[in-house]
Amino acid sequence: MSALATSIVDALHSALGRETASLHEPLFQSKEQEYVQDCIDSTFVSSVGNYVDRFEQQLADYTGARRAIAVVNGTAALQIALQLAGVESGDEVIVPALSFVATANAVRYIGAIPHFADSHEATLGLDPVALRGWLDSTAERTTDGCRNRHSGRRIHALVPMHTFGHPCDMDGLMAVAHDYGLVLVEDAAESLGSRYYDRHTGTFGLLGILSFNGNKIITTGGGGAILTDDQQLADHAKHLTTTAKQPHRWEYVHDEIGYNYRMPNLNAALGCAQLEQLREFLASKRRLYNRYCDAFSGLEQAYVMGEPPGCESNYWLQALILDDEVAEQRDNILATTNESGLITRPTWMLLNKLKPYRECPSAPLPVATSLERRIINIPSSAGLV
Amino acid sequence: MSALATSIVDALHSALGRETASLHEPLFQSKEQEYVQDCIDSTFVSSVGNYVDRFEQQLADYTGARRAIAVVNGTAALQIALQLAGVESGDEVIVPALSFVATANAVRYIGAIPHFADSHEATLGLDPVALRGWLDSTAERTTDGCRNRHSGRRIHALVPMHTFGHPCDMDGLMAVAHDYGLVLVEDAAESLGSRYYDRHTGTFGLLGILSFNGNKIITTGGGGAILTDDQQLADHAKHLTTTAKQPHRWEYVHDEIGYNYRMPNLNAALGCAQLEQLREFLASKRRLYNRYCDAFSGLEQAYVMGEPPGCESNYWLQALILDDEVAEQRDNILATTNESGLITRPTWMLLNKLKPYRECPSAPLPVATSLERRIINIPSSAGLV
Repeated sequence: MSALATSIVDALHSALGRETASLHEPLFQSKEQEYVQDCIDSTFVSSVGNYVDRFEQQLADYTGARRAIAVVNGTAALQIALQLAGVESGDEVIVPALSFVATANAVRYIGAIPHFADSHEATLGLDPVALRGWLDSTAERTTDGCRNRHSGRRIHALVPMHTFGHPCDMDGLMAVAHDYGLVLVEDAAESLGSRYYDRHTGTFGLLGILSFNGNKIITTGGGGAILTDDQQLADHAKHLTTTAKQPHRWEYVHDEIGYNYRMPNLNAALGCAQLEQLREFLASKRRLYNRYCDAFSGLEQAYVMGEPPGCESNYWLQALILDDEVAEQRDNILATTNESGLITRPTWMLLNKLKPYRECPSAPLPVATSLERRIINIPSSAGLV
Repeated sequence: MSALATSIVDALHSALGRETASLHEPLFQSKEQEYVQDCIDSTFVSSVGNYVDRFEQQLADYTGARRAIAVVNGTAALQIALQLAGVESGDEVIVPALSFVATANAVRYIGAIPHFADSHEATLGLDPVALRGWLDSTAERTTDGCRNRHSGRRIHALVPMHTFGHPCDMDGLMAVAHDYGLVLVEDAAESLGSRYYDRHTGTFGLLGILSFNGNKIITTGGGGAILTDDQQLADHAKHLTTTAKQPHRWEYVHDEIGYNYRMPNLNAALGCAQLEQLREFLASKRRLYNRYCDAFSGLEQAYVMGEPPGCESNYWLQALILDDEVAEQRDNILATTNESGLITRPTWMLLNKLKPYRECPSAPLPVATSLERRIINIPSSAGLV
């Protein structure tokens, strides 16, 4: 056990005021039981029911998106959002190399190819300056957008992901998308409650998506949502995620290849109760961040990730970022903390290193490569402090 | 209102002993609330939790399959089962034209092409004799299976679907699959509780699938399962449906393109309680079938669909089958019954007639075409009688 690892365990104990803590667990302390019971009593637990409509309206109201479409999970939401953004089989889609695998998988499900780009140290998300430089050297504008000069494929969409809830530099990324004719689709799976200059993440692109998996800031068991201001796209999203069945008194006419992706009413009932507590969860997570800042203030070789300038982060998953000179101690710190019952995790392996994505196009990734070695996620549940 | 429609309304009233009835609604009368509350109290509502393991074990025990893997819905189950059966992009897969659209959609999701085949009047499922005749004229055996002489594509799998819970002629279909080198994958979405010569549907093929959508005999809100006796395939199914993440203390290594298809623990909790009542649901549905037989015994122009010889059907969805000479009265009967508050439905539009599937290969479909005009599903909920 290194001195650094010991200091980190001590700081975690000090911040948390407890000996052990999981990485992230949901908190059910309001009307979850009530709504779920009511849902079961109504017998509408599945594809039809009021909680889905209510959850969608609550999400739209909260995020400021004109429409929200609740679906079975964030991955399904991203798949449908990309499809509605016009991504076609054989297109390339710019995604961060530093992300959960679902970001790339959703691209692959529709036959498109992820094209990895680098992150910025201050946001942990896509770096617009590096991306612009890379596109200048690799891509050319065409009448219908942008083409990769090396692969010959169309690059059609840009998918920023707001890492751990910290918003990307959206002004910069929107400018790159504009200048290169890329459709912006936001992966806001981790950033419900996060704002960039007072505007909610997931509402900058043509479409955005949220996730309500068990480890997210609010959970529906499994679930996700598509956000958009475009009514036609929203209607189409609803249609595609409900088997593309045309409305009819009794006939089964499906006019395109749809999906069984709607969120069950049972899960939406849980979501309604969770969403009512979001403000408290956000406050709790911010308190925890401040506690961590205090506890780690004496530690010179690491810092706690804070919200980028102009942003209000949801602090969904707290991150300790090691200085480069102690990055090689990451696994020792992970072992020490986990063995102490303080559950920590490294960040994801960069997607371009995973077997199914090794052959995909990639920009140089100096920052993402450095961050991958240096990030340690630390206990983050709402209600910890 | 025709005399026939009036007679049918009268017979429905007589059988049901009530004025109105929905087509199918779930029945929650046991431990649903208890298990779901316990699940929420545990905080394990999502990807990890005991109810998923328990539900999978209960399903395996009940069906006799060595393994059951719970997933997010039946469509996802069929997509993964087909992929594990070795279906590849560009392959053809034999499916019944008379089925819900999900059967064909799952084939398309992996880039394969549905090849439609005809049904048998006695089972409402694929007719092995007609299928053999069609393959004799259309396909040829090859070293790796079977090839469509017209399209040049490999025909790799055969997907019988047990319509409304009535088992197909599995002996006949297994013989065709054997003789033509086709992998058998059963779509048992509708037939939990149905047996063919004492063996549960969904356990005859290399893989089979179940659905627990809200309209099925038991429901998890949304849900499905993959059944197989092959331990390696089962392990692979679990891996693929849980983002293909390799087990590791903390690293995120995904070794193939996986899916976010696991069933949330919250939904599995509901499923455990539902499955405990399956025997009662089956008994209730059989009682209802007998009531319908009595009530419709005086009607010469229609009959109530009964279980095929050697089979024990779950009578999930009751079906009235019109004689050909009164088939043109179907829509009148549908209007009359629905306007009376007795909810009825025609069967699905044949899949080869749907816009996304019009160009797909198809055998002649005389029986399916006739059945499509003649089937009316009538109120079927467990607990009606």
